[in-house]
Amino acid sequence: MTKTQQVRLAERPTGLPTADTWTVTTTELPELGAGEILVKISFISLDPAMRGWLNDVRSYLPPVGIGEVMRALDIATVIESTHPDFAVGDTVSGTFGVTEYAISNGRGVQRVDLSLAPGPTWLGALGIPGMTAYFGLLEVGKLRAGDTVLVSAAAGAVGSVAGQIAKAEGATVIGIAGGAEKCRMLTEELGFDAAIDYRAGDVLRQLRTVAPDGIDLYFDNVGGEILDAALANLRRGARIVLCGAISAYNEQKPPPGPSRYMSLLVFRASMTGFVVFDYADRYPEAGARLAQWLADGRLQTREHIVEGDVSQFGDTLNMLFSGANTGKLVLAI
Amino acid sequence: MTKTQQVRLAERPTGLPTADTWTVTTTELPELGAGEILVKISFISLDPAMRGWLNDVRSYLPPVGIGEVMRALDIATVIESTHPDFAVGDTVSGTFGVTEYAISNGRGVQRVDLSLAPGPTWLGALGIPGMTAYFGLLEVGKLRAGDTVLVSAAAGAVGSVAGQIAKAEGATVIGIAGGAEKCRMLTEELGFDAAIDYRAGDVLRQLRTVAPDGIDLYFDNVGGEILDAALANLRRGARIVLCGAISAYNEQKPPPGPSRYMSLLVFRASMTGFVVFDYADRYPEAGARLAQWLADGRLQTREHIVEGDVSQFGDTLNMLFSGANTGKLVLAI
Repeated sequence: MTKTQQVRLAERPTGLPTADTWTVTTTELPELGAGEILVKISFISLDPAMRGWLNDVRSYLPPVGIGEVMRALDIATVIESTHPDFAVGDTVSGTFGVTEYAISNGRGVQRVDLSLAPGPTWLGALGIPGMTAYFGLLEVGKLRAGDTVLVSAAAGAVGSVAGQIAKAEGATVIGIAGGAEKCRMLTEELGFDAAIDYRAGDVLRQLRTVAPDGIDLYFDNVGGEILDAALANLRRGARIVLCGAISAYNEQKPPPGPSRYMSLLVFRASMTGFVVFDYADRYPEAGARLAQWLADGRLQTREHIVEGDVSQFGDTLNMLFSGANTGKLVLAI
Repeated sequence: MTKTQQVRLAERPTGLPTADTWTVTTTELPELGAGEILVKISFISLDPAMRGWLNDVRSYLPPVGIGEVMRALDIATVIESTHPDFAVGDTVSGTFGVTEYAISNGRGVQRVDLSLAPGPTWLGALGIPGMTAYFGLLEVGKLRAGDTVLVSAAAGAVGSVAGQIAKAEGATVIGIAGGAEKCRMLTEELGFDAAIDYRAGDVLRQLRTVAPDGIDLYFDNVGGEILDAALANLRRGARIVLCGAISAYNEQKPPPGPSRYMSLLVFRASMTGFVVFDYADRYPEAGARLAQWLADGRLQTREHIVEGDVSQFGDTLNMLFSGANTGKLVLAI
């Protein structure tokens, strides 16, 4: 019998999650049945989208139920197996949740090649954030060489990859991030053409300075005032890709929408939402191209790894909402 | 020498235009030069977009200048001509402005065939409103047979044509209008499948009743709360076409944007703005199809004709913002 600590949803938060949101329980896992694997979790992914899963509303995935183990993607090692496709010692990714150990029937579980990149990268640039950046830019945003591209939360897991993909595809790329250090990283390490520090004030004025002719594509991870600034500085035929709206996720009532949305008419522009899971059958294609960019140095990965145990999940998650992380935030246990 | 009354912009309104917005002047037109026409205006088009032209902001057309004759599309008769393409007696459409008589070099002036439809229809279903409905639905909205289509301001010049085009193309069509009489007209006369009276309250609840499975295409003429209601009741892959936002045109500061815009992500939907003038080279194609639908009875036209002189322009324009008109609003002089 394997005992495991797990983080469960205790109550739905009304704003930022607190200690009361979560409860840590210890559970004994049952014996392995036929066609199952027992995994030991090494890395837990922390994602802005998790905040949405806590709300009892209809969305692209059902909400996490009260008392359920919090949903999370993990990198894990197979330590027992009765499943024909997985052997003891395999490193895998799967939605095992915020837990130390888990049993799975193998559905949605992928073997992971650590010779290509370490575990945390498989939660970041080669994982769902990388897929999100790839399909958001290339499919939804119809990126073209020569475009001027704006990316918000550009030092985050998705944004840092999105900006580098856009560069690799021949675009001029401007990133928005919080603080001088993140902005420095974007331009000096990740090859962005310019960076805007939203904490330094007036994003629209800064944007007009670095992109006086407007932008062709805005990859939006944040919503709020930054979305309005982008709307005010579009080029004709611009595309806005809605990937997220982290500025709103902890608001207790929906904040006002983008008041400048009628810029879409003036600029003959579009705003399109997407959910990366719709592209699941094309993840291999994206993975191959991302791995190639990684190999030839055009894609650099950034992970922010917090070491600890599952009980630190709640505090670590909130780092996303204060902007404390740079790159993909991972809890290593 | 021809004397003409003209309505000029006296000052920019901050909300709804008032008597102070306009000034009526009498001008003597010069003698006709070479390659010109003198026209006598019969019908002046009144359009919601006119309100936008009064604001001193960058948009898809330059604003009307203080002291300038108000921009308007007209139907007129040629009464003198030195232009090779136009003969005395021709009926034409052109942007002659709010005026009794005008001189033109013929640029943008089209001959109009009164045997096909009377003058006001050439400002409505066969004019710019018809073109707007046609390209907005078919090109921008990518209408497909079987779609559930929602049209706001559905009893107006654009909306009434948009709904009928959608029906002719095999869609299920729901119109939103103000008041029971307009709603009755939509379903009993124009063939809409359902109508929602926004004055009867809670548009979202009404919409969920008539379209419980959501909508595929929303043709938005109004913005505001109705746009939010549509966003809350989309179907996966839905398209929102931004044609106008009449609810906001007289607001003194920009109203909040659509707070439910992140529904675009949940429903993998898009919101796209357009300006009909971009399709000018395809007006003949649209005109031919609209005329065919008119001839075979699938398109009925509605015009609201106010008889008077140019000095009534201001009061007539404001009828658009109180919803006093049904169909295309025209001032006959």
